[in-house]
Amino acid sequence: MSSEFGKILRISVFGQSHGRAVGVNIDGLPAGEKIDLEELQRFLDRRRPGRSPLSTARRETDMPEFLSGLEDGETCGAPLCAVIWNSDQHSSDYAELRDKPRPGHADYTAAVKWDGHADMRGGGHFSGRLTAPLCIAGGIAKQILARRGIRVGAHLASVEQVQDIPFPPRPTGELFAALAAKPFPVLDDGAGEAMQAAILAAKNDLDSVGGVIECAAVGLPAGLGDPMFDGVENRLAAALFGIPAVKGVEFGEGFAAARLRGSENNDPFAVENGRIAAVTNHAGGVLGGISTGMPIVLRAAVKPTPSIGRPQKTVSLSRGENAELTIHGRHDPCIAHRAVPVVEAVTAAVLLDLLLEGNHGTF
Amino acid sequence: MSSEFGKILRISVFGQSHGRAVGVNIDGLPAGEKIDLEELQRFLDRRRPGRSPLSTARRETDMPEFLSGLEDGETCGAPLCAVIWNSDQHSSDYAELRDKPRPGHADYTAAVKWDGHADMRGGGHFSGRLTAPLCIAGGIAKQILARRGIRVGAHLASVEQVQDIPFPPRPTGELFAALAAKPFPVLDDGAGEAMQAAILAAKNDLDSVGGVIECAAVGLPAGLGDPMFDGVENRLAAALFGIPAVKGVEFGEGFAAARLRGSENNDPFAVENGRIAAVTNHAGGVLGGISTGMPIVLRAAVKPTPSIGRPQKTVSLSRGENAELTIHGRHDPCIAHRAVPVVEAVTAAVLLDLLLEGNHGTF
Amino acid sequence: MSSEFGKILRISVFGQSHGRAVGVNIDGLPAGEKIDLEELQRFLDRRRPGRSPLSTARRETDMPEFLSGLEDGETCGAPLCAVIWNSDQHSSDYAELRDKPRPGHADYTAAVKWDGHADMRGGGHFSGRLTAPLCIAGGIAKQILARRGIRVGAHLASVEQVQDIPFPPRPTGELFAALAAKPFPVLDDGAGEAMQAAILAAKNDLDSVGGVIECAAVGLPAGLGDPMFDGVENRLAAALFGIPAVKGVEFGEGFAAARLRGSENNDPFAVENGRIAAVTNHAGGVLGGISTGMPIVLRAAVKPTPSIGRPQKTVSLSRGENAELTIHGRHDPCIAHRAVPVVEAVTAAVLLDLLLEGNHGTF
Amino acid sequence: MSSEFGKILRISVFGQSHGRAVGVNIDGLPAGEKIDLEELQRFLDRRRPGRSPLSTARRETDMPEFLSGLEDGETCGAPLCAVIWNSDQHSSDYAELRDKPRPGHADYTAAVKWDGHADMRGGGHFSGRLTAPLCIAGGIAKQILARRGIRVGAHLASVEQVQDIPFPPRPTGELFAALAAKPFPVLDDGAGEAMQAAILAAKNDLDSVGGVIECAAVGLPAGLGDPMFDGVENRLAAALFGIPAVKGVEFGEGFAAARLRGSENNDPFAVENGRIAAVTNHAGGVLGGISTGMPIVLRAAVKPTPSIGRPQKTVSLSRGENAELTIHGRHDPCIAHRAVPVVEAVTAAVLLDLLLEGNHGTF
Repeated sequence: MSSEFGKILRISVFGQSHGRAVGVNIDGLPAGEKIDLEELQRFLDRRRPGRSPLSTARRETDMPEFLSGLEDGETCGAPLCAVIWNSDQHSSDYAELRDKPRPGHADYTAAVKWDGHADMRGGGHFSGRLTAPLCIAGGIAKQILARRGIRVGAHLASVEQVQDIPFPPRPTGELFAALAAKPFPVLDDGAGEAMQAAILAAKNDLDSVGGVIECAAVGLPAGLGDPMFDGVENRLAAALFGIPAVKGVEFGEGFAAARLRGSENNDPFAVENGRIAAVTNHAGGVLGGISTGMPIVLRAAVKPTPSIGRPQKTVSLSRGENAELTIHGRHDPCIAHRAVPVVEAVTAAVLLDLLLEGNHGTF
Repeated sequence: MSSEFGKILRISVFGQSHGRAVGVNIDGLPAGEKIDLEELQRFLDRRRPGRSPLSTARRETDMPEFLSGLEDGETCGAPLCAVIWNSDQHSSDYAELRDKPRPGHADYTAAVKWDGHADMRGGGHFSGRLTAPLCIAGGIAKQILARRGIRVGAHLASVEQVQDIPFPPRPTGELFAALAAKPFPVLDDGAGEAMQAAILAAKNDLDSVGGVIECAAVGLPAGLGDPMFDGVENRLAAALFGIPAVKGVEFGEGFAAARLRGSENNDPFAVENGRIAAVTNHAGGVLGGISTGMPIVLRAAVKPTPSIGRPQKTVSLSRGENAELTIHGRHDPCIAHRAVPVVEAVTAAVLLDLLLEGNHGTF
Repeated sequence: MSSEFGKILRISVFGQSHGRAVGVNIDGLPAGEKIDLEELQRFLDRRRPGRSPLSTARRETDMPEFLSGLEDGETCGAPLCAVIWNSDQHSSDYAELRDKPRPGHADYTAAVKWDGHADMRGGGHFSGRLTAPLCIAGGIAKQILARRGIRVGAHLASVEQVQDIPFPPRPTGELFAALAAKPFPVLDDGAGEAMQAAILAAKNDLDSVGGVIECAAVGLPAGLGDPMFDGVENRLAAALFGIPAVKGVEFGEGFAAARLRGSENNDPFAVENGRIAAVTNHAGGVLGGISTGMPIVLRAAVKPTPSIGRPQKTVSLSRGENAELTIHGRHDPCIAHRAVPVVEAVTAAVLLDLLLEGNHGTF
Repeated sequence: MSSEFGKILRISVFGQSHGRAVGVNIDGLPAGEKIDLEELQRFLDRRRPGRSPLSTARRETDMPEFLSGLEDGETCGAPLCAVIWNSDQHSSDYAELRDKPRPGHADYTAAVKWDGHADMRGGGHFSGRLTAPLCIAGGIAKQILARRGIRVGAHLASVEQVQDIPFPPRPTGELFAALAAKPFPVLDDGAGEAMQAAILAAKNDLDSVGGVIECAAVGLPAGLGDPMFDGVENRLAAALFGIPAVKGVEFGEGFAAARLRGSENNDPFAVENGRIAAVTNHAGGVLGGISTGMPIVLRAAVKPTPSIGRPQKTVSLSRGENAELTIHGRHDPCIAHRAVPVVEAVTAAVLLDLLLEGNHGTF
């Protein structure tokens, strides 16, 4: 287990889906930062389920309780620990699953790794519920970044075959705020309706769909990140692959860059209002691992929810023979839209860590 | 700078393109491992330029000299340091570039980070030449892994619009060996010819193209890697983004998974010859960050070479005004085919690190 | 802040003395380990105050509540988070201290570091109370180690000028158990009475005294630890200096070795019952950073409690002028005896981390 | 093996005593720092043997060759790798030692860890020769620190029973320079003569002696270091125990603090010239793991050289029986005086790392 990331800002996530609580310990937060708890709660509510037919009926209030590090609404330098108490679990739903690993879930690998001792009720520590404490950390990071003019936002770029329009070359904090206020986080609401239709179609087929999330950050200064293996891309990718179901991460043009020519993919530099900037941003704000000062742009691919209502082929671990499994209980036909704030959260946490480390290229 | 990666096995890369040498220090290699230097040289030769009209005319012999850690052809437990001496540099080619950052290169971000003090001759520490010492480390890791039945191989999955066929579900060490022996590393030689034609067409247009590399590893046991942020995917992605020009990394179906349904993307389990295995491998050998025992399958997107022969728009740093730049000197119209062994090298190094750490889920 | 240590086993401590709770998150515990909660409580009670005239009257029950990682009394592989809720604080005692840093405490350095934003009530995150969650982690580690035949024990080697006898060359688990059962942890109870008299004399003088703790571990296999900077001594020292008030750490003969001759300090090897062992143990079980298989023996120096009842010279931070300070409220005239289980705890946690990492010198 | 330390500044040491070279790779040096190579050579010469009857006759020139990171005498941001080529080894002296581990050396533990595969000629990677590359790193760090008004110096505080006078409360750069210029680094030359007599007496007895080194650093700002486990003391101790033969580390009063009362050991604060400072410095410049702005003062205990001319009892690993060993060849009767610049080097490297990380307590 290494449910931690970060260099100066260390974020440790704990808890199991059906345990006593899920939570996060954040070590290295700067002191004296006011945290707006209502704003934080609004951020947490964006990933909360139970609000639409698109997600599970599990009622999670996701209200954090702060055990340390926050006094009178302000960070105090000491590690900040916050928990969300669990409730409303239906653990009996998961009895059969101890023996029959669900395809696409970590049940089998967890069984191998912890030799049958893992608490896998509701997915245990692998559950999407662990993204709630990640959002506590990320929501706090977002507030601290915003105070320095750095804004992070994301939208659902695609679901199954349906595509949203991409971010404009220079997204703004206002655009991010507008997205955050939408019940379904897309730039083109028509595409959003088509996505929701695709999700419901999958649900009706007792199936599920995946999606791609595009995230951007504006206002980050140039010069952050250390090549070759401690750069902006290395750190973001390492953290983003920690979000359950993420199977791909790309920056700027990403995989599409492999189909472009150099003359198309290179970003010319120009002097704008006395400052040097790239005219385009195919690089997604990173060259040689170091931030260029342009928006950081990344995409994360989220696979379709492995829990589906159809019978699936698996094995019985105890009997060592083939078996069939039908997953009962609640599960989302798509988690990509709920993962949008999670990608924002992880991105914000990594960028705050980079900002705290600073540019020590000279001194 | 943090040109290091790894947890138990720590790999540190040093050197600049036109400095005295490039090299690698490998801390944490197990002792008593014989290293076949001829085999290592053959591996290094796979990334060496100067062998075809597709790559630069720079003559690099890329013969490593071992300074420590290898005695009588065997690792001795002490850190292994190896260097490749530089020669045949044309530094005068790069005089103009100190003032005019090349679009798509790290010149601008390096200038910001090191405030004009970076040695950027030939790309300096950002040069593709730094992948030679990475290949020393990876070539050694490949030999140690092979002795335990773990084989790593890669091919060029696409160049511009041309696609190679993907790896079969169960690639073998023999297939990897056959690929390694080819002058152009593709599964479908017809596709390979089309790729080479695309590269030469770009060269004739004073332009460049990118590509995608698919890499696989077979024989890795199930249970390696630690969720959530220290798993197989997190570590591989963090290291792979350290290869110059990589802009995207995906595992298994990767971004394509976002277009599949759960019923298509889930890998059913079955008992095969008394052992549990997944029937398909859309997960690319990783579930919940932990290896499944199936082949690890990943793809890395390599952007088109930023150095192109056409005039490009940039700025003069000294005069703070717009400028035009034409890059002279040698450069590859495509680096993706030469990056194939580099992706293998980095993958092998990360997998050996995971194997050395072992599965400490129970004990 | 970096209230974390460990490589495979990551221990993160959080909480402030007068905050909501103090706690610990332990990431990387092996799964399937039964934890005897009564034994753990007995271990925690050894550092608890309020039991004698030698320590503060603060009533701390120090009962941990487990939020994650422990199901049905057994570790489950997921991070284990445990908290101790705070109560019985007298925060009003500390109002004056915000302005007048207490000599010998971290008040001044915390004021500089967090620019006045630190929560220093009761010492905040620097309080000795933070050793309670350390003891949760260490108590769990001790149980896991004991199951593998590795025992850790400690005694108070000196208080002011009074010396206990040192550990015998081959201390046993029985000796450690006998020490743990004593109200005052010394080998020679006569020395213990003299120590307690010295503590009470200091208390009567409105003063305080320090002491030295000797800790040993038996049963650790040879071959653990990695030279030069990741060895048994490096890791233990780095962690032990995290215990508040520790100002020195030594192994084996330690500083006394500097007064010995090589012929006296070297430990001859001999074959005993077919096994190779050192005849003496001046090295304290470590040579070249690697465990020898002999008992690990270390000593940690604990400074006298900085909180004393006498008026002390300090400054007023707000007025920038000299000031006098008299500390009211509860404080221990000596903390060294209460630090004995803390040194055991930290030692056990580091040794378990080393054991989990294992000897990867060959494979 | 983990012959690395540092967080922002990563220092990796490689090489074996009788291998091709010893060297160091320094990742994270700020760019644009001029390195005075003559000054560096003078620093390296302070640890070089072969200059007096007190040390081995091995002729080491210890001239570093820079492979990367240093261009035109200035750091360029890229990792700096420097090597010292080995020569004048008498490997035949060590043939017998493969089978008979020398008491007090790492021969036995290395044999266990690397299962007979370690290159232990001349002590291999455990040799004191590895302190030469450490001094390259530390000598560079010292120059960078000096440019910011931070000076590091050390003297031999004791040899066997002979004591030097301690550093004054406020040592200066001039004092450090005077010490560095002395052939025998003590404050009281009379004590120095007695120390040299003790060393020669031991040599005449075919024996060896140890010593204690006191090191101080002045000019470090307050507020550096992160409690609880990443503070100034934790990091210095972890690195200092990496110097071969160091068995104890203490700060300020260190172990002596355990014999003081709180009223004696506490450092009162006072306003001096408008600045807050401690009147005394029993804390050695660190409170709560954070620098106070007062001099950092530490002591490291160096054990007597394990190599002595007398016959010693050991075992034959191959025959599994008791054996006698007489070490021939060259060896120092005392290494403590040569370790003085090494302690400075490691201290300087750690302090530069702390300074580069900076105080991110607020931002």
